[in-house]
Amino acid sequence: MGPVEERRRSMGTDADRSTEVREGFARSEFHRTFLGAQLERVTPGEVDVSLLVETRHLNLTGTLHGGLIATLADTATGLAFRTTLETGTTSLTSSLSVTFLRPGRPGTVTAKGRVVKRGTRFGYAEADVEDGEGRLLARAAATFTVMPEPAT
Amino acid sequence: MGPVEERRRSMGTDADRSTEVREGFARSEFHRTFLGAQLERVTPGEVDVSLLVETRHLNLTGTLHGGLIATLADTATGLAFRTTLETGTTSLTSSLSVTFLRPGRPGTVTAKGRVVKRGTRFGYAEADVEDGEGRLLARAAATFTVMPEPAT
Amino acid sequence: MGPVEERRRSMGTDADRSTEVREGFARSEFHRTFLGAQLERVTPGEVDVSLLVETRHLNLTGTLHGGLIATLADTATGLAFRTTLETGTTSLTSSLSVTFLRPGRPGTVTAKGRVVKRGTRFGYAEADVEDGEGRLLARAAATFTVMPEPAT
Amino acid sequence: MGPVEERRRSMGTDADRSTEVREGFARSEFHRTFLGAQLERVTPGEVDVSLLVETRHLNLTGTLHGGLIATLADTATGLAFRTTLETGTTSLTSSLSVTFLRPGRPGTVTAKGRVVKRGTRFGYAEADVEDGEGRLLARAAATFTVMPEPAT
Repeated sequence: MGPVEERRRSMGTDADRSTEVREGFARSEFHRTFLGAQLERVTPGEVDVSLLVETRHLNLTGTLHGGLIATLADTATGLAFRTTLETGTTSLTSSLSVTFLRPGRPGTVTAKGRVVKRGTRFGYAEADVEDGEGRLLARAAATFTVMPEPAT
Repeated sequence: MGPVEERRRSMGTDADRSTEVREGFARSEFHRTFLGAQLERVTPGEVDVSLLVETRHLNLTGTLHGGLIATLADTATGLAFRTTLETGTTSLTSSLSVTFLRPGRPGTVTAKGRVVKRGTRFGYAEADVEDGEGRLLARAAATFTVMPEPAT
Repeated sequence: MGPVEERRRSMGTDADRSTEVREGFARSEFHRTFLGAQLERVTPGEVDVSLLVETRHLNLTGTLHGGLIATLADTATGLAFRTTLETGTTSLTSSLSVTFLRPGRPGTVTAKGRVVKRGTRFGYAEADVEDGEGRLLARAAATFTVMPEPAT
Repeated sequence: MGPVEERRRSMGTDADRSTEVREGFARSEFHRTFLGAQLERVTPGEVDVSLLVETRHLNLTGTLHGGLIATLADTATGLAFRTTLETGTTSLTSSLSVTFLRPGRPGTVTAKGRVVKRGTRFGYAEADVEDGEGRLLARAAATFTVMPEPAT
């Protein structure tokens, strides 16, 4: 570990990670332009992401496409996990599991991610996906592989 | 059950269901316009859906967003399952589970869905998500609840 | 539906279901003799099941076998779900998913199941699996198919 | 890395790993005495484990307990994964997901595990659980965390 790496490790804090998450989301064409999602809340270990559901997000049956529920859950759990990473490490989502409990309708839908475990090689987070009245639309679970950040 | 419904039940065949899947996909703003996916293959119990991955589909790290892999898998398994439904019944996806094996890159990505079980109340399908060279990017599993089609 | 069946339906209450769960567990050779588990708590929608972990339950590495964690979670979610069934209906577990967070050791391990959704055709429950100090060893999720009880 | 470790790494072969799996299973009180399972087949990346289902393995409804299906799947995927590990590494099962497709009955039930991916930090394997006539009772998926073997 060279001196630059060492400095980064010693500086690493939760606040840095939360800032990184906010800045990354703001730069993400996928999240901001394509998906049209909003970053509602970032605290260490918890991130909420919302989507204003419009016609283009719906199935032919008029309900929110399950893939978008999965995408919101993937985003909320992945960003929540990112806030907990130690400096010098990064992570990949290894698996995502979503159980659909109630159809989503036009209006606001929010995925609330929270980290349950952040180990040195493995992590686990969950999300509730709720509609604007706080009704539970889906429950999701994600696992992560933690690894050293590639040198840049 | 009125006379029209009765006729549909007696006429119900796999070919009808495949046609329904093709027509529904063609009408789906979500799949065609928003997601930009293509329906590649529809046979009884198997449906392939592809996406030409472009910049707007990528994470900040330059890889295909996991939510889109989940969306393709959800679509391929859901449509594959739909081809197997008996006339007078419909289905909802109850759960979707995706394991991410390799990062996706710009280029074509295809989700290949196939039905493993179609019961009278429960169903199960799987999907391989592959890149243009046939490398496995993800494996997915979906469960379904089967129910009588609401009278229209 | 004969008169006996009719009477059972009209009498069905949560209390009946909890009693059924207790009586079934007491009669179950699998749970009582083979597994050696204890039914710790039965309330509508929640069931706790514990196991005193002994040498025969361990992996070669000296930790509780993951299959037993899955078995406890399956039992706790399945029995919790059973307490919520309406009279005249029964259920099957359709899927079980367990994430292992910490190795289990000899001592008491408890799976705490709770129902999140009980629909007319589909249900969902979760479980925490904890050691004697309340540390979370695993999180589990189960889905259920609900169906009419076969005539006896 | 000291000389002993170095020797072990240079000697490590698939054949060694298969032998380790066979010897470990033979020593395992959990698998041999408590569960009563048999190791049917060990090849690099694939392991089959069977159980002669008897009365003590059944639910009150007379079908094989789902926890035992999960246990067989956990064992077959875990041992299959172990055959693929490089010398000097070990693994833990991070998650296990089982979808139940058909009830199991007394007679032989076999879980056939196969590795889909063995990375340096993450792995993935699947299993078919079949009855004596080759009917599919369940499909299972397991993920693994790979790590350096602790010095002994």
